[in-house]
Amino acid sequence: MFFSKRDLQFQLFEVLDSESLTKYEYFQDHNRESFDMVLDAAESIAVKMMHPLLIEMDRNEPQLIDGKIRIHDGMKPIIKKMGEDGWVNAAFRYDEGGQQLPVTILNAAGFIFQASNYSASIFSFMSGGSANLIRTFGSQELIDTFTPNMYSGKWQGTMALTEPDAGSSLSDISTSAEPTEKEGVFKIKGQKIYISAGDHDACENVIHLMLAKIKGGPIGAKGISLFVVPQKRIEGSQLIDNDVLTAGIFHKMGYKGAPIAHLSIGSNDGAIGYLVGEPHKGLSYMFQLMNEARVSVGLNATAIGTAAYYASLAYAKERPQGRKIAEKDPSKPQTSIINHADVKRMLLFQKSVVEGSLSLLLFCSKLSDLIHIETGEAKERASLLLDLLTPIAKSFPSEMCCLSTSAAVQILGGAGYTTDFPVEQYYREARIHPIHEGTTGIHGLDLLGRKITIHNGKAAQIYFEEVSKTIKEASQVTEIQLFSEKLQKYLGKAQQATGHLLGLAGKGEIEKYLADATLYLEMFGIITIAWQWLNQALIAQQNLATAHEADRDFYQGKLMTLRYYYEYELVKVDSLVKRLQSTDNVTIEMQSGWF
Amino acid sequence: MFFSKRDLQFQLFEVLDSESLTKYEYFQDHNRESFDMVLDAAESIAVKMMHPLLIEMDRNEPQLIDGKIRIHDGMKPIIKKMGEDGWVNAAFRYDEGGQQLPVTILNAAGFIFQASNYSASIFSFMSGGSANLIRTFGSQELIDTFTPNMYSGKWQGTMALTEPDAGSSLSDISTSAEPTEKEGVFKIKGQKIYISAGDHDACENVIHLMLAKIKGGPIGAKGISLFVVPQKRIEGSQLIDNDVLTAGIFHKMGYKGAPIAHLSIGSNDGAIGYLVGEPHKGLSYMFQLMNEARVSVGLNATAIGTAAYYASLAYAKERPQGRKIAEKDPSKPQTSIINHADVKRMLLFQKSVVEGSLSLLLFCSKLSDLIHIETGEAKERASLLLDLLTPIAKSFPSEMCCLSTSAAVQILGGAGYTTDFPVEQYYREARIHPIHEGTTGIHGLDLLGRKITIHNGKAAQIYFEEVSKTIKEASQVTEIQLFSEKLQKYLGKAQQATGHLLGLAGKGEIEKYLADATLYLEMFGIITIAWQWLNQALIAQQNLATAHEADRDFYQGKLMTLRYYYEYELVKVDSLVKRLQSTDNVTIEMQSGWF
Repeated sequence: MFFSKRDLQFQLFEVLDSESLTKYEYFQDHNRESFDMVLDAAESIAVKMMHPLLIEMDRNEPQLIDGKIRIHDGMKPIIKKMGEDGWVNAAFRYDEGGQQLPVTILNAAGFIFQASNYSASIFSFMSGGSANLIRTFGSQELIDTFTPNMYSGKWQGTMALTEPDAGSSLSDISTSAEPTEKEGVFKIKGQKIYISAGDHDACENVIHLMLAKIKGGPIGAKGISLFVVPQKRIEGSQLIDNDVLTAGIFHKMGYKGAPIAHLSIGSNDGAIGYLVGEPHKGLSYMFQLMNEARVSVGLNATAIGTAAYYASLAYAKERPQGRKIAEKDPSKPQTSIINHADVKRMLLFQKSVVEGSLSLLLFCSKLSDLIHIETGEAKERASLLLDLLTPIAKSFPSEMCCLSTSAAVQILGGAGYTTDFPVEQYYREARIHPIHEGTTGIHGLDLLGRKITIHNGKAAQIYFEEVSKTIKEASQVTEIQLFSEKLQKYLGKAQQATGHLLGLAGKGEIEKYLADATLYLEMFGIITIAWQWLNQALIAQQNLATAHEADRDFYQGKLMTLRYYYEYELVKVDSLVKRLQSTDNVTIEMQSGWF
Repeated sequence: MFFSKRDLQFQLFEVLDSESLTKYEYFQDHNRESFDMVLDAAESIAVKMMHPLLIEMDRNEPQLIDGKIRIHDGMKPIIKKMGEDGWVNAAFRYDEGGQQLPVTILNAAGFIFQASNYSASIFSFMSGGSANLIRTFGSQELIDTFTPNMYSGKWQGTMALTEPDAGSSLSDISTSAEPTEKEGVFKIKGQKIYISAGDHDACENVIHLMLAKIKGGPIGAKGISLFVVPQKRIEGSQLIDNDVLTAGIFHKMGYKGAPIAHLSIGSNDGAIGYLVGEPHKGLSYMFQLMNEARVSVGLNATAIGTAAYYASLAYAKERPQGRKIAEKDPSKPQTSIINHADVKRMLLFQKSVVEGSLSLLLFCSKLSDLIHIETGEAKERASLLLDLLTPIAKSFPSEMCCLSTSAAVQILGGAGYTTDFPVEQYYREARIHPIHEGTTGIHGLDLLGRKITIHNGKAAQIYFEEVSKTIKEASQVTEIQLFSEKLQKYLGKAQQATGHLLGLAGKGEIEKYLADATLYLEMFGIITIAWQWLNQALIAQQNLATAHEADRDFYQGKLMTLRYYYEYELVKVDSLVKRLQSTDNVTIEMQSGWF
């Protein structure tokens, strides 16, 4: 199996107490049974429809033929099913056709889809995210015109941001929007690249949520507006070609089943876009989707890492090779490699990364739900904490699942490098995540340069309070007290490093302050996951005494992984903190000509 | 360009003083000019023949058709050229048709081939290594029968070790050898997998250097013998089918241009093998080739990492994106990404890994030469030091070039993930190296469990003496004195960790002693490369004052990379040492059922 149902239940219902969400009016029709039904339904689609295509979709990439991208035929029933069963708008209100499902549960279901076949999972996710932008910021006319077919899976939604000359530096986009006689209707002209599901033959129409600059507006980020730019526009009951050409398709190392398009918009002056919300506010609108998408990218990476972990775990249990270190008799039978300490180390590494990440990501999902349903201070706290955690929730899983899928390959040895096993594919697929939805470097700058300091550091203060709360609880449980002390110590180190860096900012040394933002993000990520592990261990320790046998094994595994993580991963903060507090500015002083 | 000629010259002639080898009688016909000619000849083949096929060979993998592996047609002239120009046996004696070229220079040439197209480089390397085994341990008859056609490129050589049930645990091979009436001639029966260049259509015959067990011999490693098992055996002037069938071909994540075969030997009872040397000594013979091959694997990884580094460096210099951190004006033009500290960090990381690794690998190559030409204590010291360094020289580059090629991908961002640029291919190709020729885990056990302790720790003692010598020299140069102090401190930490682990061994706690051998290897690797950087910096600092302008930039780059490495990489030893000295045996205590 490519994920653990037991772990998902542990995270959702034991650690996060997701059932408590049903006490709120918005979620009152739900209960544990309905949540389980949702997860079972997801598992059924994942197992029966998505997973069987995992390898095939990798080997038979989408192709651009006569201006249209052709995807794997097996995607068509999946996209249809996802629409029909209401997965695209499951979290939306009843009056919008939604099911008022908590994001926590929807993301857990998404995790199952992603673990089964990442490429197959993105189509309805893209539609959901972009439809959500229209319904939140668009006019009723836009909502009525576009969203129903996006919900049903008939039309594909996308987010169209990146351009050939504007990737990390979004403010430099040059796609232009020229007003027409009709209010809210613009002529769009430009190039967009790396557009996921930007065109394919399993939908009737593609609805791009596109950033462009209205001519004559402010330069830079303040001049960016958001438009709905459909591939075909709607005139009466007709779909009319809207001059959005698929100029190319990108072939990639992995994530091959998903069609990634290069779009040429308005090359014949015929592309029409509909303004969403007010002019020049596009970037702030888009950030709603980007923040959701960033948590989703973390989840994607975690899902791929999870599938690789279970593939390597199954192999390690079955593959005999070598003998226990103290066994010198070559006539004795070989032992399964899972009995070698070094293989267990690589499995524990994977387990600590993927279950630690999943814990953080579902916690972030629950914060989204709380922001939606809470009010006042509770809402504000959840909102600030999610803001702070977003760069970590995106980047830690993305970076670490490159390494954890690598460990999966290593456990299989030569077999892992061949296409006879799926781990090499997981290794290739994991590598996109530190890149898209903002590179790790961008998220480092976001965390250290913005999130740590916003609202006079209030988000950071809430974070430290929350971590300290867990530390305090754990300090009262004998078996894990030691780990609460360790986390307290490392939290102190992180605070000290933060103080050092903010000191540089205070002196106006902005370049020095931010030069190692990526390392700061790494440090913060390691500590955040250590917090998640302490929290998981608290629950595991609590429930261990009364658990039946299989569950005892499960909880023991959690407690051992806590130990692994603190012994092997948390200690890396020592080295990071040493560097972060160093005064050698080698990366600033290095000159281009010296390379 | 995919490598730096300037850096290769620096390493060979400024750091290692390879010219000094020509003072020895064996190398007396060589001089700086002849070395340069060899390197130029390698560059010419690499640039004109190998590099143009880099992408093509990846996209058009070898295929097994009607029992024969078909490789890319472009390989045929390359294999012919490599044979004709004497690359296979260049290091061998004149009377063997060789050129008595130092291994140092031959490996430097090999590095150029590998950086241009790793898959294309392996054919003649495999032939050279296996021919070397025959000439060292085989009878004159075997030498005369097989090696000339291997030297000329007409026949392919291989090393055939791994079996479906015996990879890391070589002592468990089950391929059998049954004596025939003729002395030294055996009937061979078994399966071999993952045989590089194990079959292809660019050669007339394939000569396998194969491990098998003579029936009735000792069990385990002590019963392994070495055989020449040709694909076609020679009877008179005829090539007769020898019942070595190509049962399959492995398709892989990368390294796709090289045909990796599954061989079925003697399935019709018709496979003949010729014993090399004495019975039951096969494993010790094979270790000659394996030790050479391990240094070569390190070099392969470094070469791929080097090509990726230069690809990402070129991109970083050309790609405009974003503005300097303190520049807030969006109307200003974008800057090249090489001006961002975080991009420079990723470039410095790559530079530190690939140039540090190359330095170590050429140092090891020079040790090979010294072992060959020196006598007495000098020979013994070189031999022990090379023994100790081999697991590090294999593993550090292999592991780190997975990360450095990843940094190359990251610098290119979305573009790096597409097949429009070669970095994704380098990322895939790098991943084989921590696996083949002994996994990293195996080398950890080799270093800590064997090399550190052999001859009462004499190899380790020589290592510490050599590193201390460099530290002492550097301590007398003001500009780098600080780094000599740092290395001294970390060397002390490594010695302390070693003492702790050997203490466990002394108490008979063998499992605890070796549980973290992989981490010990990592620590030892980081320190060893820090030593190489200190040594490079010594020379760079020395030569800086009198250098012309371009060379000043080159030396400045070396000194900055020293700083980078000590600031960002060497500090990782702190975390490793903390774990290595911990008493929490979590990876031993973890149970299979708890995962």
